[in-house]
Amino acid sequence: MAPTFRRLLAAGAISLVALGSAMAQAKDDGAMFPNVESFELDNGMQVVVIPDHRAPVVTHMVWYRVGAADEPPGKSGLAHFLEHLMFKGTEKIKPGDFSKIVRQKGGEDNAFTSADYTAYYQRIAKENLPLVMEMEADRLHNLKLTEKDVETEREVIIEERRSRIENDPGARLFEQMDAALFLNHPYQRPVIGWMNEMQGLTLEDALDFYRRYYTPANAILVVAGDVTAEEVRKLAETYYGTLKNTAEVGERKRLKEPRPEAAREVVLKDANVSDPQVIRSYLVEATGPAGLGESAALEVLANVLGGGPTSLLYRSIVVDDRLASSASAWYSSDYLDYGKVGLYATPLPGTEAAALDQAIDEVIERLKRGEISDEQLEDAKSSLIASSIYALDNQARLARLFGTALTTGYSVEDVKHFHERIKAVTRDDVAAVARKYLAPERSVTGRLLPTMQATAGTPVPAREGKTTTEPASEDVHKQPAKKEGQS
Amino acid sequence: MAPTFRRLLAAGAISLVALGSAMAQAKDDGAMFPNVESFELDNGMQVVVIPDHRAPVVTHMVWYRVGAADEPPGKSGLAHFLEHLMFKGTEKIKPGDFSKIVRQKGGEDNAFTSADYTAYYQRIAKENLPLVMEMEADRLHNLKLTEKDVETEREVIIEERRSRIENDPGARLFEQMDAALFLNHPYQRPVIGWMNEMQGLTLEDALDFYRRYYTPANAILVVAGDVTAEEVRKLAETYYGTLKNTAEVGERKRLKEPRPEAAREVVLKDANVSDPQVIRSYLVEATGPAGLGESAALEVLANVLGGGPTSLLYRSIVVDDRLASSASAWYSSDYLDYGKVGLYATPLPGTEAAALDQAIDEVIERLKRGEISDEQLEDAKSSLIASSIYALDNQARLARLFGTALTTGYSVEDVKHFHERIKAVTRDDVAAVARKYLAPERSVTGRLLPTMQATAGTPVPAREGKTTTEPASEDVHKQPAKKEGQS
Repeated sequence: MAPTFRRLLAAGAISLVALGSAMAQAKDDGAMFPNVESFELDNGMQVVVIPDHRAPVVTHMVWYRVGAADEPPGKSGLAHFLEHLMFKGTEKIKPGDFSKIVRQKGGEDNAFTSADYTAYYQRIAKENLPLVMEMEADRLHNLKLTEKDVETEREVIIEERRSRIENDPGARLFEQMDAALFLNHPYQRPVIGWMNEMQGLTLEDALDFYRRYYTPANAILVVAGDVTAEEVRKLAETYYGTLKNTAEVGERKRLKEPRPEAAREVVLKDANVSDPQVIRSYLVEATGPAGLGESAALEVLANVLGGGPTSLLYRSIVVDDRLASSASAWYSSDYLDYGKVGLYATPLPGTEAAALDQAIDEVIERLKRGEISDEQLEDAKSSLIASSIYALDNQARLARLFGTALTTGYSVEDVKHFHERIKAVTRDDVAAVARKYLAPERSVTGRLLPTMQATAGTPVPAREGKTTTEPASEDVHKQPAKKEGQS
Repeated sequence: MAPTFRRLLAAGAISLVALGSAMAQAKDDGAMFPNVESFELDNGMQVVVIPDHRAPVVTHMVWYRVGAADEPPGKSGLAHFLEHLMFKGTEKIKPGDFSKIVRQKGGEDNAFTSADYTAYYQRIAKENLPLVMEMEADRLHNLKLTEKDVETEREVIIEERRSRIENDPGARLFEQMDAALFLNHPYQRPVIGWMNEMQGLTLEDALDFYRRYYTPANAILVVAGDVTAEEVRKLAETYYGTLKNTAEVGERKRLKEPRPEAAREVVLKDANVSDPQVIRSYLVEATGPAGLGESAALEVLANVLGGGPTSLLYRSIVVDDRLASSASAWYSSDYLDYGKVGLYATPLPGTEAAALDQAIDEVIERLKRGEISDEQLEDAKSSLIASSIYALDNQARLARLFGTALTTGYSVEDVKHFHERIKAVTRDDVAAVARKYLAPERSVTGRLLPTMQATAGTPVPAREGKTTTEPASEDVHKQPAKKEGQS
């Protein structure tokens, strides 16, 4: 959940006004989002309500605890394929009409798939909440698919892969890095799927997956907006509470990684690369409730390491050593089974790969030795807390925050107490997770190079300001070019 | 099958006497092994008979078309675990008695598992062939296992993993390299299994796997030795022909690799490494009948590249550039779905990793441009043919040659015509497969380094003559320290 904060919020700076007003929402016990409520329907469907009365608008989301990591072997891309097919229609709604109806009411809708969840949402005027609930509940069980739907939509996802991955060397590199980072766990395969397997996805595959995972007890309803918990409860009981469970989903048990043994490197060369990049990922153990403290320490670590122009990495390799034109770091904890700490640098022309690696390694060694000033530590914590508070200002982001948390091993309470966990992080905590997780044998170093170039960053000029961040590979949408913080 | 020749035979030099007598066995049409016969029993069990009347001894093998790549996800090591458990006994044979009976008759027995096959064999005096057939047929269907057997034997395979893999940095590196070479196909996991999954293997897992794959139509009987095809046919019909098929195995369909995109590197550091090693693997498409020509060209390629002290790689990096103390190359085609071309070098003290990589790459570029002399080409072909002929001199090797071939996509005829395919290889064929397969994005480069060393081969002295070759990871035996060309 924590990275969700940062990832969703990285776009905007914090206005002090927003921050102050958000802080006012904190309860005496320090918990954020004091007015967020959560309950369960009789059929096991979880409901989260996030009241936000600033405008007569609601964000309605249904999240399923199923994603690409739940696909049967050989069927990569199936979760995302089904997400597309969910717009094909039911007995009541003709193919394509779902989105049309939402648009006619002035709303917008979309869907996204990650390794761990699949979610559908509409943002619409408050009075249309019953309508979208009725339609969403309808397609939860009554999806109708034809061979033709499947053929058409398979072409769409294949084209999506072409445009989003195959035409983007950075996306291809991230895909290859995940494939090298994970030796056994299904996070090794891309959410959108391997092309050769996408081509073989069938109507039967989609329906099997739908029947197995799309059932109320495996779903979470998140409603944010101009509503009260009681209003949502009544509507939810009417539209979702009446649905019977049609499948027993059981525990989400994925393959485990063997003990990490060897540092890996992945080099991708492409004629379309203008700025070489060096990217590194470190494998982090499952977060979830048991690892909440570690997860908070890793948040602080990533911020201290590469959270901005005052971060250790930036100051070392960009400002002091002038090896790179930009540098950053991040922590991705919004996965159910394993997290990742990532960092990247854009080497300046003339920078040798080995010199840059060594400089990065030295910064990491400093982290391990706890060489962080009080100011750096406090700045990182304040920045994380401020960023997270900014989430309060955007309804859809708030809804995503809770949806992501609940499908990746966190509880509503875990989200509410994020600030306290961040505040409790000490220098020793950061050094301890650095020593535990930033080990070479847990890492994959990716190098993006122009074709015909032997080493990182030598002859090609790097453009200032252009950065690569981890692609939101979990966000694979039905429609191109959506707003709402969706990439 | 081809690498089987080389791998099985690499140990010994060719004596001209053996070679001449072997050549005498070739038929007019040039086919090798003219007296090898093959037929099928009514239940679909295939039989191969390799008459060899030099001594009153037989090698009796039963091969199953099942291996580690057929294991269900999360159950790595299961095929090999079952191989161990097959020695536990049946209604007729008490646990452990199988091997004891063979030994009492002066014979020896063992078993081995690869990604694609599991095989059991006995080498014993001719008159005991009916006895071993009876016992082998008995455990094909009547295996009896207890929870205690499973617990005990699980400790044995775990200990086997510890001693063979975890205590051997080279073996760990090969394991990690395969995990990086294969992004999707089950060859990415080790035959012996990942430790964390081996610990969870159960009685039920073993029995499910046994019941699903151990059935006559999925088995191949190979008998080499002082027998005729007619004698074997009669015995086989008596002991195996009477068994009913208890399962429908179906086509062997494994996940396919996505298109290779990025060169990979795996660095393993260990305090026990004395000689740094650089190893490279290239992914080769499925061989099998369709790719027989390519496979032959790859055999020649590997031999030209690194088949000995006159090979391109050795002459370049050991003799001329003095970058390494040893170098070699090989081609592993004895897999059903993908092959590998491999090479390795032991860098001399002071050799920079980048310089060695560049020298290796230059040799590969020469291969791609077809810069091979007539003499080099002919020497490689002669050497491959001579090596293969040497197989005729060892009964167990011969039996393995055919068993491996028949479980990895080749026919008896394919084996017989190996020489002709090798003879037909041209310089252009070698250059074509070099260009097709020796591409950076198909490769993983492994580096084995002593702990605390930053780059390949700098401060640690390399010992002349000690080489790393690909570990026979497919050979995971029931008993340690067996003879018979088993590692």
